[in-house]
Amino acid sequence: MEFVINQELLKNVSSTNAALFYEEKEAFSGVNKIAQKVMHDLELVFGNAPQATTDRKKLGKNAVLYGTVDHSAMLQELDEKKMIDLSEIKGKREVFLLQVIDHPLEGVEKALVIAGSDKRGTIYGLFHLSELLGVSPLVDWCDVKPQQKESFSLEADLKYISKEPSVRYRGFFINDEWPAFGNWTMKRFGGFNAEMYDHVFQLLLRMKGNYLWPAMWSARFSEDGPGLASAELADEYGVVMGASHHEPCLRNGEEYKYLRGENSIYGDAWNFITNREGIIKFWEDGLKRSGNFENVITVGMRGEQDTSIMGKEATLADNINLLRDVLQTQNQLIRENVNPNLSEVPRMLALYKEVEPFFYGDENTPGLMNSEELEDVILMLCDDNHGNLRTLPTEEMRNHKGGYGMYYHFDYHGGPISYEWINSSYLPKIWEQMSMAYDFGVRDLWIVNVGDIATQEFPLSYFLDLAYDFEKWGTDAVNKTNLYTNQWVEKQFQAVFSEDDRKKVVELLTGYTKIAHNRRPEHMNADVYHPVNYKEADHLLQQIDYLLNLAEELYQKVDPENFTAYFSLVYYPAVGNLNLQKMWLLTGKNHYAAKLRQMEANKLADQIRECFKRDRKLVEQYHTIDNGKWYGMGLSEHIGFINWNEEECQYPILMNVLPANKQRLMVTVDGTDQHTEGPAWHNNKVYLNDFLQPDVEEASFTISSISDLKAEFKITSQNQWLTCSQTSGSLDGVEKTKEIIHVKIDRSKMKAETEGSIVVEMPVGTCTIIVNALQNDFSELPEMTFVETNGYISIEAEHFALNKEATNQQGDVNKFEVLHGYGKTLSAMKAFPTTGYFTAGEDAPYLEYHFVVQESGQYEVELYMQPSNPVTKEGTIFCGIQGNEDEINIVNTLPEKYRVDDDNWGAGVLNNIHTRSSRINCKEGFNTLRIYAVSPGFVLEKLVIYPEGKKPVTSYLGPTETYYVGKCGSKL
Amino acid sequence: MEFVINQELLKNVSSTNAALFYEEKEAFSGVNKIAQKVMHDLELVFGNAPQATTDRKKLGKNAVLYGTVDHSAMLQELDEKKMIDLSEIKGKREVFLLQVIDHPLEGVEKALVIAGSDKRGTIYGLFHLSELLGVSPLVDWCDVKPQQKESFSLEADLKYISKEPSVRYRGFFINDEWPAFGNWTMKRFGGFNAEMYDHVFQLLLRMKGNYLWPAMWSARFSEDGPGLASAELADEYGVVMGASHHEPCLRNGEEYKYLRGENSIYGDAWNFITNREGIIKFWEDGLKRSGNFENVITVGMRGEQDTSIMGKEATLADNINLLRDVLQTQNQLIRENVNPNLSEVPRMLALYKEVEPFFYGDENTPGLMNSEELEDVILMLCDDNHGNLRTLPTEEMRNHKGGYGMYYHFDYHGGPISYEWINSSYLPKIWEQMSMAYDFGVRDLWIVNVGDIATQEFPLSYFLDLAYDFEKWGTDAVNKTNLYTNQWVEKQFQAVFSEDDRKKVVELLTGYTKIAHNRRPEHMNADVYHPVNYKEADHLLQQIDYLLNLAEELYQKVDPENFTAYFSLVYYPAVGNLNLQKMWLLTGKNHYAAKLRQMEANKLADQIRECFKRDRKLVEQYHTIDNGKWYGMGLSEHIGFINWNEEECQYPILMNVLPANKQRLMVTVDGTDQHTEGPAWHNNKVYLNDFLQPDVEEASFTISSISDLKAEFKITSQNQWLTCSQTSGSLDGVEKTKEIIHVKIDRSKMKAETEGSIVVEMPVGTCTIIVNALQNDFSELPEMTFVETNGYISIEAEHFALNKEATNQQGDVNKFEVLHGYGKTLSAMKAFPTTGYFTAGEDAPYLEYHFVVQESGQYEVELYMQPSNPVTKEGTIFCGIQGNEDEINIVNTLPEKYRVDDDNWGAGVLNNIHTRSSRINCKEGFNTLRIYAVSPGFVLEKLVIYPEGKKPVTSYLGPTETYYVGKCGSKL
Repeated sequence: MEFVINQELLKNVSSTNAALFYEEKEAFSGVNKIAQKVMHDLELVFGNAPQATTDRKKLGKNAVLYGTVDHSAMLQELDEKKMIDLSEIKGKREVFLLQVIDHPLEGVEKALVIAGSDKRGTIYGLFHLSELLGVSPLVDWCDVKPQQKESFSLEADLKYISKEPSVRYRGFFINDEWPAFGNWTMKRFGGFNAEMYDHVFQLLLRMKGNYLWPAMWSARFSEDGPGLASAELADEYGVVMGASHHEPCLRNGEEYKYLRGENSIYGDAWNFITNREGIIKFWEDGLKRSGNFENVITVGMRGEQDTSIMGKEATLADNINLLRDVLQTQNQLIRENVNPNLSEVPRMLALYKEVEPFFYGDENTPGLMNSEELEDVILMLCDDNHGNLRTLPTEEMRNHKGGYGMYYHFDYHGGPISYEWINSSYLPKIWEQMSMAYDFGVRDLWIVNVGDIATQEFPLSYFLDLAYDFEKWGTDAVNKTNLYTNQWVEKQFQAVFSEDDRKKVVELLTGYTKIAHNRRPEHMNADVYHPVNYKEADHLLQQIDYLLNLAEELYQKVDPENFTAYFSLVYYPAVGNLNLQKMWLLTGKNHYAAKLRQMEANKLADQIRECFKRDRKLVEQYHTIDNGKWYGMGLSEHIGFINWNEEECQYPILMNVLPANKQRLMVTVDGTDQHTEGPAWHNNKVYLNDFLQPDVEEASFTISSISDLKAEFKITSQNQWLTCSQTSGSLDGVEKTKEIIHVKIDRSKMKAETEGSIVVEMPVGTCTIIVNALQNDFSELPEMTFVETNGYISIEAEHFALNKEATNQQGDVNKFEVLHGYGKTLSAMKAFPTTGYFTAGEDAPYLEYHFVVQESGQYEVELYMQPSNPVTKEGTIFCGIQGNEDEINIVNTLPEKYRVDDDNWGAGVLNNIHTRSSRINCKEGFNTLRIYAVSPGFVLEKLVIYPEGKKPVTSYLGPTETYYVGKCGSKL
Repeated sequence: MEFVINQELLKNVSSTNAALFYEEKEAFSGVNKIAQKVMHDLELVFGNAPQATTDRKKLGKNAVLYGTVDHSAMLQELDEKKMIDLSEIKGKREVFLLQVIDHPLEGVEKALVIAGSDKRGTIYGLFHLSELLGVSPLVDWCDVKPQQKESFSLEADLKYISKEPSVRYRGFFINDEWPAFGNWTMKRFGGFNAEMYDHVFQLLLRMKGNYLWPAMWSARFSEDGPGLASAELADEYGVVMGASHHEPCLRNGEEYKYLRGENSIYGDAWNFITNREGIIKFWEDGLKRSGNFENVITVGMRGEQDTSIMGKEATLADNINLLRDVLQTQNQLIRENVNPNLSEVPRMLALYKEVEPFFYGDENTPGLMNSEELEDVILMLCDDNHGNLRTLPTEEMRNHKGGYGMYYHFDYHGGPISYEWINSSYLPKIWEQMSMAYDFGVRDLWIVNVGDIATQEFPLSYFLDLAYDFEKWGTDAVNKTNLYTNQWVEKQFQAVFSEDDRKKVVELLTGYTKIAHNRRPEHMNADVYHPVNYKEADHLLQQIDYLLNLAEELYQKVDPENFTAYFSLVYYPAVGNLNLQKMWLLTGKNHYAAKLRQMEANKLADQIRECFKRDRKLVEQYHTIDNGKWYGMGLSEHIGFINWNEEECQYPILMNVLPANKQRLMVTVDGTDQHTEGPAWHNNKVYLNDFLQPDVEEASFTISSISDLKAEFKITSQNQWLTCSQTSGSLDGVEKTKEIIHVKIDRSKMKAETEGSIVVEMPVGTCTIIVNALQNDFSELPEMTFVETNGYISIEAEHFALNKEATNQQGDVNKFEVLHGYGKTLSAMKAFPTTGYFTAGEDAPYLEYHFVVQESGQYEVELYMQPSNPVTKEGTIFCGIQGNEDEINIVNTLPEKYRVDDDNWGAGVLNNIHTRSSRINCKEGFNTLRIYAVSPGFVLEKLVIYPEGKKPVTSYLGPTETYYVGKCGSKL
């Protein structure tokens, strides 16, 4: 007989002795509170709330029995009765047993036992029940309504023991909370108080996180509860509290500001040299106040407001000595006020910003690495604030007893440009980076800066799931982010959308985050994408419009009950992102069209204005839906940053043109910057070279109005093998400001010709379009051979001819894998194991590319790579490049003296790409190019090969891929 | 008793025997025709037409007796009667005698005798009568109505003999006649025919010109009359016909196009090598057809359509030999078909474009200079198409028997950018250049390209008056263009405007032409004037608005009868020019404001649109006034040239900004590009340095809206000695988008302070304006000492401390003169005699400047000069520069290898300035700088002195003049 919960059972629950949940008095109070929340989940599912009872007799026939090992007489009994076996979980970390048993207690026929190895184990077990019932972890935070059920059953022999979470401390950081989160919580909860944190804790725990850094730019977690209410609630729930990298000894950064003063016992200087006594007292009182809660205590010291502690004149040794002194002092304070056995006190030191050099030291000055002050202390590393890891523990360092942590960013307030408005993180990147962190031994603490939380729920779920179950989602789960997204969407919208529509939600989420991954909204401007080259702006606009239409379609479909969840989790972040990207793309096109005085510019200006209005309306709507549930959360500035922060940000300039007083038209060759009005005395010839690509059968040019006068044009193809979609037409320069003319080629009619022409006659001017074309047959060449036909070759990294693995002396296989959808265009190639240093020609795997060039000589190979930072302090990421039979050239893919925070780095994180040019010798005809993996962090997206000095025209995404043997026909 | 014409007399004229004009049968028919026009003038003046009679008996008591020496029995009689003395004019060129005599004939009591030494002498005499009557030479061409008179009298003893004109052939060239002149004459006269030319000839003769090049880009003067009608009429009127530099032997350029062909007797190639026979026949028939008229026959040969004749492969010698052959052939044809005595046939060879090197040859190849083929041929030199002379005859060359001519431009179709729309020539420049031409011996032919004639009447009058009476208006008449303008305006508008209003017309004409002189309308664009530096754009806008208001005021005042004359001669060219300049200045400001996202940008965009509309409406009105009298004349494109011709020209881009979503304001320091919104994390400090100039007592900054939200600001001066015009205020970003805050300094309160500050508090951001000020007393320094207080010194050339003349061995005095109003800012300095080559330190005059700098060291002296070309082929214009007691540095003010048509030249004619930097050593404190005249063509406008490498910020006019001892207080 199955364990069943159904509507029938719950309907009767209040009138009879039929309580479902057994609430033990000796249970953790927090566990009982969580059980209440789960019971509320059941109410959402079944329409009626279950009852809990402290009296076993009042339990119904079916009961949920939950408890924590060593904190439950009931569990003890069942164990003793051999109905369950607590030894299977006892002593484990955050594990729960879920088991269906028969007749555990008198009057109870069937029971679901939820036994936690510890407090959080029980809580995760309880929330696991909710999840089994189809309740999303976002049920409370985002009003995600579960599908209503008649009945729910678990198999009679169900027994499930959860795993120990992969990462010990897993959580997020509410940061940069003004203006959005701050206004939100002030309006909804009246402050940064426990009432608000109840929701945050719940969100964290439902996502199986256990660790939180609270808001801290104006708020004081241990004062605002009011008082300790928030801290106490956290402790009750088993939420391990941390504090950011510069808030040691359980004190919030803002606290000192309120306590300092001339007559303060804490003195009046955040300075361990001049105000040692005051600072020590400050820390001591913090430890005394909050030391009995479950914490990861931040140690170390930084300056106020995220600055360095000593002046610029101080030497490295000065700094190290000071920090050592600080650490010794703090350890002693912890011993005295928290636990004399320091090894039992979780502590964390952030190796962040200037603290990092103090840890490593230099040739002359040993750093704090391996010092006894840091024994058992989790060393927290961090990304570059833009989602790219920095230094990672070397093999030797991984022995550090305290283990390692990672501070990752989904939101950042700082250089080169902040991003705080809306989610712009892309799961494949999180996977690629965080799984590498784990591989490098960063397994004790994962914390992610989620800014205001709102709109970050999607990547945050992924981050915490990855941290919880690395085996499932981590390194071995290559290319599983799409599966994850599907599951995530199912969790939120099973009750809302059909399977087909959920696929559309998946498309939307993947689509907008990939676009944001290519360029975050705050980093966009009119000059990012090229307005015409390779048609990259138009292609992206097409894609954006496709996604916006999906979003609208679902917006129309979603029922009112689920509107808020759809709006906040999907529509708002997706449309917010896409509309903003669109606005800037249109602005780039507007400026370009205006420069050429195309009347189209005026239309584009109107469209920009529409996007701008839509942005404003979208935020407004976000702030008003569900009675202002999200009020304030959209307040962060997000348009046109020119500084690292929002100050003096610049919205798009709308350029309007004045109509010419003659019937002037202009011919532009699509995908290029060629343009002409066909003047008699100046350039009136343009070139259409798309057909030089053997797979291209259709190309286009555009005729645009320069005046608002009706103007006719006549198009004459001079060759039988060229057909234009129109032979004449007219524009009025007002309603109709341009016409795209599609040109088709019929290579079978070309005979020996390689050049054709199309003449466009206009009222003012006549233009000749020279059409260069190729009809060569490359079928003799091997598949995957790229053929240079127009000055360069562009290769998507996954289009290798050979992916060659290598085996090292230990017999391990080293191998490149395709990371689908990763990077700025098609995908990326990364070598595994991710921690490996390979020797090219020995144990290094390589990718081999085949290509044909028309002339022998020196060529440049430009590699496009994910903007990884080196995992060591050396500042290099090497790969091997080998042209034909030449020697392997070991190349540092980073600029000389590359450093996180320098300009190259800055360009890299904004553009989300690193490129590096190397030279190879090519023969006329067939050539091979091998790219060897050498250093960790090398992730290859694209290769562009061109004769030395003849770089293809500029663009944001790089030249679109050129022809290779076996490529399908395409339109340009 | 005076000679009187009055209304009474003319009223009775038809009813009695009281004809006023005596028309002799043996007189030139053209002279009689002109007399008719003069009689019509009288009708305009007196309201009644006088009568002419061929019968002496029908003459009234008062008579006008006109005739030409040797073509008038009547004059002969009077001479014989000793009533006049024809010997005083006989044999002279174009001279007339005007004399009042008593009882010349029976029944005639009083007569005015107008006796011409030749046909044109008589005609000039007749028109002189019109002028005496107050009839403008533009009476016919521009409908300038004379003031109506009751009566007119000449003193009884009046006797006036005119001078021989200074320049032999004086005239203009109707050129680049499409679309304007072409459409005009097609509509008004149905073609380029005699009916139209009647007006043109009349205009020419009334202006005392005698020479014309007819329209020739589509027209054929000798075919379109119809037939020879125009040529015959010209001959009748005594208009000497010429043809442009590439139309030899009385053939028009277009003619060959119509006559050539496979079976043509003239062959089918404009090629003296391959089609010698055909070309000779073509020329021969031209000479036969028109050789009996009065002509200056163009000799030589160029390619079709203004191109060179031989291919690029031909050597210089090849070309010279070909040209010599051509000349010999043409001379022979002229001998045979026009006059065996070649020296009696006026001929002209243009030393233009590629022909110039053929004339001069090079070291190895003697040119055509001094060759017998050119004996008696007028050698026509030319300007650089933009009003700057090029090579001029050397002293030796001036002996050439045929003399020299000059082809000057008020209109040009060619590089770097054409100007064909509207008058943009400035009298002081014409004076400066053409008087130098005369000084250099160019006295036989002056021809000016006037494009469509329309709107060029003002400078054309001046050009022809200068050519007619060089003694009055030429080299010795320094700074008399203003007088000329006054007289010209009086001629046109005595009947129309009061003296005060005529002064306004003078201001308008001088004002708009000076502005156009600084930058021609077709050469303007948004980036010419700096939108903020030195406030040059604002100052110019102010001046333009002042002039536009004058134009409007007069527009309102002028009576309907005189509207056309005012509109076509003053309003249209002035407002057309000014409005266009304004549009571009606003565009520059719009782009600048938009870049800063000032809401003001949107207002500016609207204003640009207004200017653009006004431009269109102005042309429309020009085309419709007076029943379409000027239809077509405004058709030339004139906005935004990006090529040398109008093709693909680009109208202003209007930039609009989107309002920020916060109450953002911005502080800008007027006259500089400093701007800040007062951000907390970025630059929020700006500098007001105007008070470093001791004479400046008021400066300003501006607060601008960045949003459309009402926003208040508060201004606090931190110093007693600084007062702001407002201490608070608000902007709404819609109606009120900016506020200019005037800052006054009270130096008496400064004490020892040199730095003050003003704090501007805004809703978002706070800005501090650091005010640097100087209260030094420089009264100990000599007058005219410039004092460096802010990094540089800028000196208007006329503000020398000493203007030192020099005397050469022959005792001639060499001396700089101030040319008032000349150049781009205040005035210019030029050395006289203009032909002089001076030796610095010997016979060279110099200007001495005094200045004080704060630090010793190397300084750069940047000279701003009128963009003169060298008068010789050497490509150099030298001057001497001497800092303090250092050696005189003889400096070529032109770039190395300067050549007309190169990029430096191009920039010079567009910007209307040449600048040249030299270095001098300065001492701390007082320094002197001497500038010596060395080569002809050196015209100095401004000097800027600054420490090496520390060039003041960029602008179009250069830094405004800085303080000198004795300068009056000024606002910045």
